[in-house]
Amino acid sequence: MDRLKGKVLIAQGGGPTAVINQTLAGVVLEARKNALTTAVYGSLNGVRGIVEENLLDLTWETSHNLERIASTSSSALLSTRDKPDQEYCSRIFDVMRKHDIRYFFYIGGNDSADTVRIIEEQARSTGYDLRTVHIPKTIDNDLPVNDHCPGFGSAARFVTQAFMGLNLDSRALPGVLMGIVMGRHSGFLTASSILAKKYSDEGPHLIYLPERPFSLESFLTDVGRVYGEHGRCVIAVAEGIKDANGDSLLLRHNQNHEQDAHGNWQLSGTGILGDFLAKTIRDNLHVNRVRADTFGYLQRCFTGVISDRDSQEARELGEIAVHYAMEENRNGSVVIRRPVMDYSVSYDLVNLPDVAGKTRVMSDDFINEQGNGVTDLFRAYCSPLVGTQLPESFRLRAPSVPKILEPQP
Amino acid sequence: MDRLKGKVLIAQGGGPTAVINQTLAGVVLEARKNALTTAVYGSLNGVRGIVEENLLDLTWETSHNLERIASTSSSALLSTRDKPDQEYCSRIFDVMRKHDIRYFFYIGGNDSADTVRIIEEQARSTGYDLRTVHIPKTIDNDLPVNDHCPGFGSAARFVTQAFMGLNLDSRALPGVLMGIVMGRHSGFLTASSILAKKYSDEGPHLIYLPERPFSLESFLTDVGRVYGEHGRCVIAVAEGIKDANGDSLLLRHNQNHEQDAHGNWQLSGTGILGDFLAKTIRDNLHVNRVRADTFGYLQRCFTGVISDRDSQEARELGEIAVHYAMEENRNGSVVIRRPVMDYSVSYDLVNLPDVAGKTRVMSDDFINEQGNGVTDLFRAYCSPLVGTQLPESFRLRAPSVPKILEPQP
Repeated sequence: MDRLKGKVLIAQGGGPTAVINQTLAGVVLEARKNALTTAVYGSLNGVRGIVEENLLDLTWETSHNLERIASTSSSALLSTRDKPDQEYCSRIFDVMRKHDIRYFFYIGGNDSADTVRIIEEQARSTGYDLRTVHIPKTIDNDLPVNDHCPGFGSAARFVTQAFMGLNLDSRALPGVLMGIVMGRHSGFLTASSILAKKYSDEGPHLIYLPERPFSLESFLTDVGRVYGEHGRCVIAVAEGIKDANGDSLLLRHNQNHEQDAHGNWQLSGTGILGDFLAKTIRDNLHVNRVRADTFGYLQRCFTGVISDRDSQEARELGEIAVHYAMEENRNGSVVIRRPVMDYSVSYDLVNLPDVAGKTRVMSDDFINEQGNGVTDLFRAYCSPLVGTQLPESFRLRAPSVPKILEPQP
Repeated sequence: MDRLKGKVLIAQGGGPTAVINQTLAGVVLEARKNALTTAVYGSLNGVRGIVEENLLDLTWETSHNLERIASTSSSALLSTRDKPDQEYCSRIFDVMRKHDIRYFFYIGGNDSADTVRIIEEQARSTGYDLRTVHIPKTIDNDLPVNDHCPGFGSAARFVTQAFMGLNLDSRALPGVLMGIVMGRHSGFLTASSILAKKYSDEGPHLIYLPERPFSLESFLTDVGRVYGEHGRCVIAVAEGIKDANGDSLLLRHNQNHEQDAHGNWQLSGTGILGDFLAKTIRDNLHVNRVRADTFGYLQRCFTGVISDRDSQEARELGEIAVHYAMEENRNGSVVIRRPVMDYSVSYDLVNLPDVAGKTRVMSDDFINEQGNGVTDLFRAYCSPLVGTQLPESFRLRAPSVPKILEPQP
């Protein structure tokens, strides 16, 4: 097969991550080296920039600035939640044809993968010669086939460092301290809070995931037990927890919910679930201090808390995606595999339908039997992903001074 | 005057900070070097550990472990919100006398300074020879006399890095994004969000502080104007904002508020203020995406986001406090002054009544005329405090590709 000469187009879709621009830099720098490339374009606001013909000529971007952008959080090409239909796709091809785009790289989650799948199908059915590669990113870590997704490690590092702080805070001034973590269907990010636990009496003492039905009754029993034992309780709750009927607790209490073009309900950006759970504890248990912190958008693009491994892999995925498309002339979705548990990765290209629109949830062996915590296997899985040089906490080990007064009445 | 030989007692009170253990290590290491010191004790849970005689013998703590604890967030000696009355103080003296405590260092905010003031007065009136020094810490930066307080710089760095992320996130997926920041009476921490603004169209576009009356009408006008201009709006709101009558908006909407022993209402640990403001925007302005993130306890002890300057000063304050008490035989509150704006500090000892129970708010020249933002003077004031090597964000500078298709209908 003749190898395609033409322009390379790259776009970023869905929720941004802290390392998504590493992938952008990886694609742009690698594509610019290739003799088949006549120019590298970037589409602004994901696929919307294609239909609106809002393209940047990244051929002119300096390598130096690309490196600075690589270490900047959130999609430098901006993003979109648009879900292309047939008409949207026709317009995409009009623009691609006119501009002689022959390689399309779309960095995104499972919804973006589905967009790439539709574009790939349409290109094939209309006989337009186009290489399309989806490159994963998502803090939710919910793409199938992948061992993990770029963006997850850095978000998990944020969650870990946040729970380290909550652990230390709740030890100094005890009470019940809850952290509500992003995660619609998959609990990976919420579960990563376990890495904050160093000492055996530390939290998170309880972790509630969307993968298990949430019961207020068991929740109160759990919290009461932990509070009775430790005099405090640190809890990680996924914003997507559902009751036994599969109904989201957050949506039940939030009258202002919005839905995006992919049919996903907006869960983040409100403290309503945390406030509801805190009130439930206050109304039912004898606890002085009950606090709920909703991490919201902080955990997605927080500047300066990055997993080095996550960052490197995000870069490599961009590079390898260009290789698959331009050297091997293949379409698909790039995936990360893990041949060595602790720790090395390899990359592969799979067919888009294997990834597109599908959601991976935590496997049963990652969740404890009671459904209120995670297993050591999950800890071993997650630990390398948050990167090296994680901050660590320490405690005084000094002996108590013998009491010399009468005990206070 | 004969110099006092005896035991040194140290405790930590009030809300913890990320660098409060630097001060602890500074006091312990310096006091252990002094020939007047017979032992160094630590009281667990602030002054409560004294009345309950829960003391640790820090003489035995290794220097190595003290260094590791210094870089661990949150009070290693744990904390308390207790406000000692006469009886509580009598008990404190019983314990101090029996254990031959002659030097008492209390690391805390203005409430803790007031506790030290009461103890100092009682020691004088009962003729018990005791040197007492209050060492400031507070993320609110609300102690008078001080140019700034240890703990503020690191919390301000967290707020800055968080708003950098919110800026980048809201640029990729535009809307209104609010961050609710701690601050009961003083807006310093909320105001520090301005350091996240690098590009002229970036947020925070609006900053609302407890120092100015908050009007929902002006708020909506402001947000509508910014959203009209930029297509997005990033807002920093202090949790302590009050209406024209001085009533807290948060307390008005929160039926679950608690009060501590110092009469302070609990404001943090709930998303209710952010949710209320988000709903107000949704109900009144035509904005698609409105999100509110309440930073809550994340901003206080977040692990791994530390201002190096804050950390060094917190350490030095502990060291200098020991010097004032043991070498100069003086009581008081250690303060930080700033002889050189950008940047050096000096330390001083002032009388406890100058600091105790008093609250410093932002001066008028730090707040803009409209009361919805801060001045360049504040930025210059705050900028060195968050420390060096702050992460920075960058943007693509590539030129647009000329459009070759008809504009979309």
